Amino acid sequence: MNPIERLSERLIAGDSKKAALVYSTINRYYLTSFPSSAGILLVTAEKAYYLLDFRYAEAARAKAKGAEVVDLVSLDETLKNLLNKHGITSVYMEYATLPYGTAKRLEKICNDCGAEALLTTELDEAIRVQRIIKSEDEILRICDAQAITDATFTHILNFIREGVTEREIALEIESHMRKLGADGNAFDPIVVTGTNGSQCHGVPGNTPIRKGDLITMDTGARLNGYNSDMTRTVAVGYVNDEQRDIYNTVLKAQVSAIEAIHAGVRCCDIDKVARDIIETPYPGTFGHSLGHGVGFEIHEWPGFSTRDETIAEPGMVITVEPGIYVAGKCGVRIEDMIVVTEDGCRNLTHSPKELIIL
Amino acid sequence: MNPIERLSERLIAGDSKKAALVYSTINRYYLTSFPSSAGILLVTAEKAYYLLDFRYAEAARAKAKGAEVVDLVSLDETLKNLLNKHGITSVYMEYATLPYGTAKRLEKICNDCGAEALLTTELDEAIRVQRIIKSEDEILRICDAQAITDATFTHILNFIREGVTEREIALEIESHMRKLGADGNAFDPIVVTGTNGSQCHGVPGNTPIRKGDLITMDTGARLNGYNSDMTRTVAVGYVNDEQRDIYNTVLKAQVSAIEAIHAGVRCCDIDKVARDIIETPYPGTFGHSLGHGVGFEIHEWPGFSTRDETIAEPGMVITVEPGIYVAGKCGVRIEDMIVVTEDGCRNLTHSPKELIIL
Repeated sequence: MNPIERLSERLIAGDSKKAALVYSTINRYYLTSFPSSAGILLVTAEKAYYLLDFRYAEAARAKAKGAEVVDLVSLDETLKNLLNKHGITSVYMEYATLPYGTAKRLEKICNDCGAEALLTTELDEAIRVQRIIKSEDEILRICDAQAITDATFTHILNFIREGVTEREIALEIESHMRKLGADGNAFDPIVVTGTNGSQCHGVPGNTPIRKGDLITMDTGARLNGYNSDMTRTVAVGYVNDEQRDIYNTVLKAQVSAIEAIHAGVRCCDIDKVARDIIETPYPGTFGHSLGHGVGFEIHEWPGFSTRDETIAEPGMVITVEPGIYVAGKCGVRIEDMIVVTEDGCRNLTHSPKELIIL
Repeated sequence: MNPIERLSERLIAGDSKKAALVYSTINRYYLTSFPSSAGILLVTAEKAYYLLDFRYAEAARAKAKGAEVVDLVSLDETLKNLLNKHGITSVYMEYATLPYGTAKRLEKICNDCGAEALLTTELDEAIRVQRIIKSEDEILRICDAQAITDATFTHILNFIREGVTEREIALEIESHMRKLGADGNAFDPIVVTGTNGSQCHGVPGNTPIRKGDLITMDTGARLNGYNSDMTRTVAVGYVNDEQRDIYNTVLKAQVSAIEAIHAGVRCCDIDKVARDIIETPYPGTFGHSLGHGVGFEIHEWPGFSTRDETIAEPGMVITVEPGIYVAGKCGVRIEDMIVVTEDGCRNLTHSPKELIIL
């Protein structure tokens, strides 16, 4: 079954009076395999329609999967015709992402056809349940994206030297990922050096690398819709004892958390494994979640925080990325992407994790 | 006055019981000059607060303008405290972009404080009216972004040759823009050659350039929050008579439209100037709007279509980009960015427009 059929089965279950309207760019891309900045997907029990304007309709006829492409001239008219044709009385919509004004507009179109707009969480939840477990094909695509990130890490180790700036490193990473076939960045690369390292989401600036710096690089490639995500911290020249201890503490936390993962464990319990190792020697320095799901979006489910009670299931792809951030001094973060298996997990990241001093 | 003060003056006008909640990433960046993927801005008559989580608060204290940075631990609590502290009774929200679920959550927070959530278009409209007219400083920033796009066009003319693929050209454009200092692409570059040229929003693929091809490149750089946008179509080797005639028709339409622009004219009337020139010899081949506003977003106001009755005003920055698309044959588009002046317009694009045959 293709993704649209799976969604239809879960949400509509053959009820010819029900339909789902998918508006968000990400969910439309996920469901149809066709990226476009605008459009709307109508899923009914019988079939699915992909309403696209002039800019995309021609290409979508060749590439979109699982839905009939309909030329969108007037959204109101096209949608009303289809809702009436199928005798739809209930239309599920995306609660979390649908813009408020659009929700009101679509609600009116539904009401004009005698249908109820279901501005509730059922559609979001059906898509979440579907997307949170990756198929073998999806995992392969994530691995392909990660292979580019790994190869780029190897490349960048030869590029980093004293005097090169954060920004130059970030650009070289992006450029190399693209040369290796990436469709783009999974996100703007984070490259922070020295005291900037304590900003865990810092923007690469014109700060040059100096000897004795720790450099944290959080990068990922996007390929065929799927994302990869990896962080490595490396040193240039030398490290002092404190830096080495911070590094080894993060590494121990990261490796221990990965060892704790298996189907059936709660995400918050895995978070606690890493957090406990950091909190004793470095209290208050690990201020973010242990990780997050990755797939069609760079941040998706599960949230993987201290409060996340999601039970790990086979096929979930998550990052494991503890960090220590000491304001005015430095920061260290180490991040792998893993897929949960029945009795453990498989690490999709293949770059080395022992401290590298360039 | 900074952008937050201007918004406050227009929308709140000193009324201490009114506030605005700005949630969208773009509007927060525009108003505070500080980019972040999450956060919320509360504007009251007295002062503005920028609620940001751990990842951004430190950097925002140094860089965000016009608002006090507040560490966001619990959105509900922090927001309730501030609304109560100021005795707010009405809270404007973003109608067009606020996600439905978020709107409902914020509405509940307001109601819990005895305030009314104004899920109407007033806030959107106040921001639109402010953003649609660019200050001299904003125009300079757009010019800086366009200078990178112009320089990259010059560079790419030396890169294009028989056998190079659309994708390789797109990557070289992106990479060169970044080397020249761009923060990123304004949008994923469109590079389409030969018969692909009829897909006006085509994605660069592995099609190689052949002699006799027309290559359309729609690209732009992003710098300090502002975008640039330019399209050029060039030929490789030679052109046939039909290609040359199509090119010259688009060029005539584009130049004539630019000549028709001045403060006081309706956008749809400028669109008509270009459309009439194309429709007679090539009916039905120009299927999109003549252009769009550019600034903090790559597509903003005005819409600049056949139906757009916006009156051109000094300070509006718009693209002028007619095209002809003949399925199975080729496509041509020529696009400049202009700023409307009292008695005409100033062209911010400096790349040549006569047909270039490489």
